[in-house]
Amino acid sequence: MKPQSQIDVIAFDADDTLWHNEHIYLNTHEKFKQLLRQYHHEEWIDQRLHETEIRNLQHFGYGIKGFTLSMIETAIELSEGRVSVNEIQAIIEFGKEMLQAPVELLDGAAETIAHLAESYELMLITKGDLFDQETKIARSGLGDYFSRIEVVSEKDVETYKRLTAKHGIAPPRFLMVGNSLKSDILPVIAMGGQAVYIPYRTTWIHERVADEELEAKEYKTIQHISFLPAFLAEMTQDF
Amino acid sequence: MKPQSQIDVIAFDADDTLWHNEHIYLNTHEKFKQLLRQYHHEEWIDQRLHETEIRNLQHFGYGIKGFTLSMIETAIELSEGRVSVNEIQAIIEFGKEMLQAPVELLDGAAETIAHLAESYELMLITKGDLFDQETKIARSGLGDYFSRIEVVSEKDVETYKRLTAKHGIAPPRFLMVGNSLKSDILPVIAMGGQAVYIPYRTTWIHERVADEELEAKEYKTIQHISFLPAFLAEMTQDF
Repeated sequence: MKPQSQIDVIAFDADDTLWHNEHIYLNTHEKFKQLLRQYHHEEWIDQRLHETEIRNLQHFGYGIKGFTLSMIETAIELSEGRVSVNEIQAIIEFGKEMLQAPVELLDGAAETIAHLAESYELMLITKGDLFDQETKIARSGLGDYFSRIEVVSEKDVETYKRLTAKHGIAPPRFLMVGNSLKSDILPVIAMGGQAVYIPYRTTWIHERVADEELEAKEYKTIQHISFLPAFLAEMTQDF
Repeated sequence: MKPQSQIDVIAFDADDTLWHNEHIYLNTHEKFKQLLRQYHHEEWIDQRLHETEIRNLQHFGYGIKGFTLSMIETAIELSEGRVSVNEIQAIIEFGKEMLQAPVELLDGAAETIAHLAESYELMLITKGDLFDQETKIARSGLGDYFSRIEVVSEKDVETYKRLTAKHGIAPPRFLMVGNSLKSDILPVIAMGGQAVYIPYRTTWIHERVADEELEAKEYKTIQHISFLPAFLAEMTQDF
């Protein structure tokens, strides 16, 4: 039975909210720097890779395949063409390893999702390569708890407006849970929805937001996904 | 007003059904062969690229980004590492050019879609990279005619079952229109839906099906999308 509550649907981000993801990128950054250390120092390699990634978002969107192409492009550019084809082959292998990396759930994620699914309709909203996200959802073992799954190319105000309209959800009764202020929290609040922020231990630089953007924004922060049921119970009591 | 008809929703494939796509791949194949002609003869290059693509589908799924990674891998393998980084950079540029290629509608597609949208609910079901497909739909100018748009990673029986269930469509009242027997026609018929096949001038080898798979399969073939309204009118009269 659904409890009396002001929330109809709870939507979850997936990467670094339900399962670990950022470490896969960080590990690959590390391997990439080791591979190219003969050409430049590490900080420079990091900076150039980040620049290439951001520049290529317009072509590739988010996801591992575009990131892999950006690594290859960066390697060629920063070595001024001296990178070897063996090294480029190694970069393609990095990409494949990322795509095959095991899905490691965050502590408490499975229990929390199973518990909340008894009382709420759950939705999954994730950004990146369609094929990659779908296989991760399947491998996570959590797919069946979500009645609606949406893989999107961007998480902005328009996206959330479109998704809530498509699914017939009133924005004030829509709650988004995620680890990215930029993608999961601020656009949902701007649309008139509710949001719970659960910080992850690292945040991709592209997802960081300036402090002033957070001023006077109404969202809640909890430190662990396991706290979510108690938080929701308290929030529901207030109504 | 919706006419009395046994069809509730007409779903269209996009690539090579509404807009030209295969020629973008064929052109790139041509440029790829020219680029690598010093290493091998053209037929061998084609064959190796095809093998790499199929082998990598499990990692990359469909779409231009995965195809670009497969071109790089093929170039390294078939040149036995002799390919130059300039040539690899050129391959990345091929990929970006593919992603930026203008969306050229098939003759009659815009008029047919606009006409059918007056009488039917239209859906778009397309396979490939999410970000790429979304920008193509936006650039096609046809997006607003489709009340439901689905970008999927695979078009098999399970996909069509899932989509019709999700949208509450009875399979016998669902009609799929597309240029791929493998992806648009056979799985829809297997699910109990209806299908209209509009052959395109070329078919990617991976999408081809053997003649015996088509035996006793009930689908209609028309030679041009412009014939679709008349075909549907006739089909509707039969009921």
